[in-house]
Amino acid sequence: MSQTIEVWFEFASTYSYPGVHQLSRYEGVPFTYRPFLLGPIFAAQGWSTSPFNLQPAKGRYMWRDLERLCEAAGLPLQRPTQFPRNGLLAARVAVAHQGEAWIGEFIRRVYRANFAEDQDISSAEVLGPLLAALGCDPGEVLMRAESPATKQLLRDQTQRALELGIFGAPMFVVDGELFWGGDRLEQAVAWWKQRSAQDRSAG
Amino acid sequence: MSQTIEVWFEFASTYSYPGVHQLSRYEGVPFTYRPFLLGPIFAAQGWSTSPFNLQPAKGRYMWRDLERLCEAAGLPLQRPTQFPRNGLLAARVAVAHQGEAWIGEFIRRVYRANFAEDQDISSAEVLGPLLAALGCDPGEVLMRAESPATKQLLRDQTQRALELGIFGAPMFVVDGELFWGGDRLEQAVAWWKQRSAQDRSAG
Repeated sequence: MSQTIEVWFEFASTYSYPGVHQLSRYEGVPFTYRPFLLGPIFAAQGWSTSPFNLQPAKGRYMWRDLERLCEAAGLPLQRPTQFPRNGLLAARVAVAHQGEAWIGEFIRRVYRANFAEDQDISSAEVLGPLLAALGCDPGEVLMRAESPATKQLLRDQTQRALELGIFGAPMFVVDGELFWGGDRLEQAVAWWKQRSAQDRSAG
Repeated sequence: MSQTIEVWFEFASTYSYPGVHQLSRYEGVPFTYRPFLLGPIFAAQGWSTSPFNLQPAKGRYMWRDLERLCEAAGLPLQRPTQFPRNGLLAARVAVAHQGEAWIGEFIRRVYRANFAEDQDISSAEVLGPLLAALGCDPGEVLMRAESPATKQLLRDQTQRALELGIFGAPMFVVDGELFWGGDRLEQAVAWWKQRSAQDRSAG
């Protein structure tokens, strides 16, 4: 069972907020976080912002749908005064520290800061205290996040997202098979289980 | 319980195919079919065709996702050689005969003709035999479908879709509340049940 379920997400993505929180329902399933940026992917299609801003009817629907989803999941929601928020710094922190034990909690807290507390997650003044509360050294983490190597890592990962055919978030990926949106997580987990069973019987 | 769940659909819409077939899971729930055209709604956004054609990555994902959904639902699927197919005539038949007992079966069979048998559903030569198999008089039904009153009815219904904020299909609507996509049907039914209970206790 070397295979994991890759969770491709972007900090500005509304549906990724309940998306990353619902992972805890699947105990024992190995998720790997894959932060990336939707901006360059949207730009490659000629879009200057989120499709939820470009298509007002779809945007209105999304905010209402998100409200219902969060209510059902018991997640607080406060519509951010800025959308989409710049998730670059947070994505750099996440990509530079993918293997750390605190990374899942960091990701969930950044989403809550953005979508439940209307905080500017692009700012080191917001991420610093959040990192400190997790027991990290904010200065060290943020310095590593801003290093040239990390910047390149995030560019590479966004390029990889494009190559995988990722066009939105959250996207769950099992061995190249894509599952888009929180409502496909159950299918992604079923797919992963089937694959894992095949691997075991072949091993 | 005067309220129903309105099922807004378009015959060219891929996800509406499993969408209308899964309604039978909810026995006793009153669904009302609301055919409309996505073409004018897409055109209002400056799009000349389906977003699944305009965004290749999203299109590739959709066909694969549809394959998995249909397999799970036991529905045959053959990717149509033409997409989107012109659903105008079928939509006119459906809008002109919304109250008929055979309308649900007509709708399901048109979707199967398009998405499982790769038939040209824009043609009277395809719809005629399909209607005859349902015990209808094809000549009479198709004549009514092409009447000026029916054409206006479908234009009005598409305009109503726009006003409701509908931007895709299938869309389930309960008292102005929108639920988009087959994966929101369960929520729509739960919403309808809650509303019906409130109506009863208020009545």
